[in-house]
Amino acid sequence: MDQEGARLGAATENSRIIPMASVIRAVVITVSDACSRGERQDKSGESLVELLIEVGAEIVETKIVSDDLEPLAEQLRVLAGRGDINLIITTGGTGLGPRDNTPEATLRVIEREAPGLVEAMRMETLKNTPMSMISRGVCGICSATLIINLPGSPKAGREGFAVIKPVLGHAVALLGGDTHHAAQ
Amino acid sequence: MDQEGARLGAATENSRIIPMASVIRAVVITVSDACSRGERQDKSGESLVELLIEVGAEIVETKIVSDDLEPLAEQLRVLAGRGDINLIITTGGTGLGPRDNTPEATLRVIEREAPGLVEAMRMETLKNTPMSMISRGVCGICSATLIINLPGSPKAGREGFAVIKPVLGHAVALLGGDTHHAAQ
Amino acid sequence: MDQEGARLGAATENSRIIPMASVIRAVVITVSDACSRGERQDKSGESLVELLIEVGAEIVETKIVSDDLEPLAEQLRVLAGRGDINLIITTGGTGLGPRDNTPEATLRVIEREAPGLVEAMRMETLKNTPMSMISRGVCGICSATLIINLPGSPKAGREGFAVIKPVLGHAVALLGGDTHHAAQ
Repeated sequence: MDQEGARLGAATENSRIIPMASVIRAVVITVSDACSRGERQDKSGESLVELLIEVGAEIVETKIVSDDLEPLAEQLRVLAGRGDINLIITTGGTGLGPRDNTPEATLRVIEREAPGLVEAMRMETLKNTPMSMISRGVCGICSATLIINLPGSPKAGREGFAVIKPVLGHAVALLGGDTHHAAQ
Repeated sequence: MDQEGARLGAATENSRIIPMASVIRAVVITVSDACSRGERQDKSGESLVELLIEVGAEIVETKIVSDDLEPLAEQLRVLAGRGDINLIITTGGTGLGPRDNTPEATLRVIEREAPGLVEAMRMETLKNTPMSMISRGVCGICSATLIINLPGSPKAGREGFAVIKPVLGHAVALLGGDTHHAAQ
Repeated sequence: MDQEGARLGAATENSRIIPMASVIRAVVITVSDACSRGERQDKSGESLVELLIEVGAEIVETKIVSDDLEPLAEQLRVLAGRGDINLIITTGGTGLGPRDNTPEATLRVIEREAPGLVEAMRMETLKNTPMSMISRGVCGICSATLIINLPGSPKAGREGFAVIKPVLGHAVALLGGDTHHAAQ
């Protein structure tokens, strides 16, 4: 399978960086009508894949989907339930527009919310631009998989990722039942 | 109609300030048992009307209502559904008291939450007073209308408005389906 | 009764510090599988009891419970409904692990959320450690009792308490229907 190949390839490449127990096995989902129709290049998704690889994550899969709510929720549900993924990062669909459905799709599937990550993204990037406060991204856990909504622009996505980057490895380790809570 | 007159009057006065596409057409609702019974002057509502006019908003209507939950929810629902309003700002009823029902009334009518605006208000005004953390205000979208809960005191209302002021025009433009996401 | 004795004892000791109207009558609940089985000392709970006494609170009761969700929710419901308590502080169970159920237990019993206190805890302690953003603690009101989730580590608990400490007395006074909103 392509997905399996990508995963193993990434594992081979990155397995020396962080211990196996806390390896981030990530899917990046670009949520954008324009990108899904091929009308715009998916720079945000590509940028997040690069940033995840830099922190030692395996990229299990990448997806580009439209802003439709129910198909996105179903996509998140299926991916979180697979068992070989512990992080799903979405980019796009977090604004105030009528087609911005990513937070609602995420809320439909998560069993437990983890608001601190998106709060921190908004509050830290507020130092760069007041526009960060209109991002409606949510974060939570579905089937031991952490789902985090990042904004859609490549710049806002990179800035948001920089905020959550220091805790991703630890977060993923905790999901798996590692109860050593470190400094938290 | 009085409402129509007020709207057109404000439009004539302010239409040069911001482009028509993103004109803020606002209702200010003061939620206060004391003000609704005429026992206290509505300084918060008056102050917010002034601040909105300063940023070029049309004031479509102002209302003073009691802290009763269900009538307030119904009021918000009707106003958001009218189609000629894109912003409802409430002041009051966001505290911890038994009659502070504004967040619950708002949560009943919004289809999508936009937590970043109230988070930013609380976190920025926390620099002035720790009391900002007990404001329970919420923000969200109902029928393409943004509803924002501001605290009840004139000072806290003004300070909260100053935080969200830079994004109001852009937020209202996005609600209407303008998908150009600027720096967000 | 032991509980009554503890309450009266604390009242005698602390009643000179803050006026009767806003006396904090608190229960501290340590949520920890290990502590509830006696495998670990409850340093967090002990530390919070000390900090509460320092601000003049009466400690009505302390409890150590497991991470089981439904029993914890029932415990919170019963305590909030008793009428002689206006503050419940929990410590533990706010992380991302499969047994971290405290926020969900709290969400099941609160009638109204007060997100500002936990937002402020996360954002202020973010200056000390990025790990603060993975705390999922919630805060809200059940039967005129404020319930606040603090993290489980003694250090994070103390740091979180320091953030909310300035508003606890005022918050508890408001719960009781004191509608004088001070600077809020």
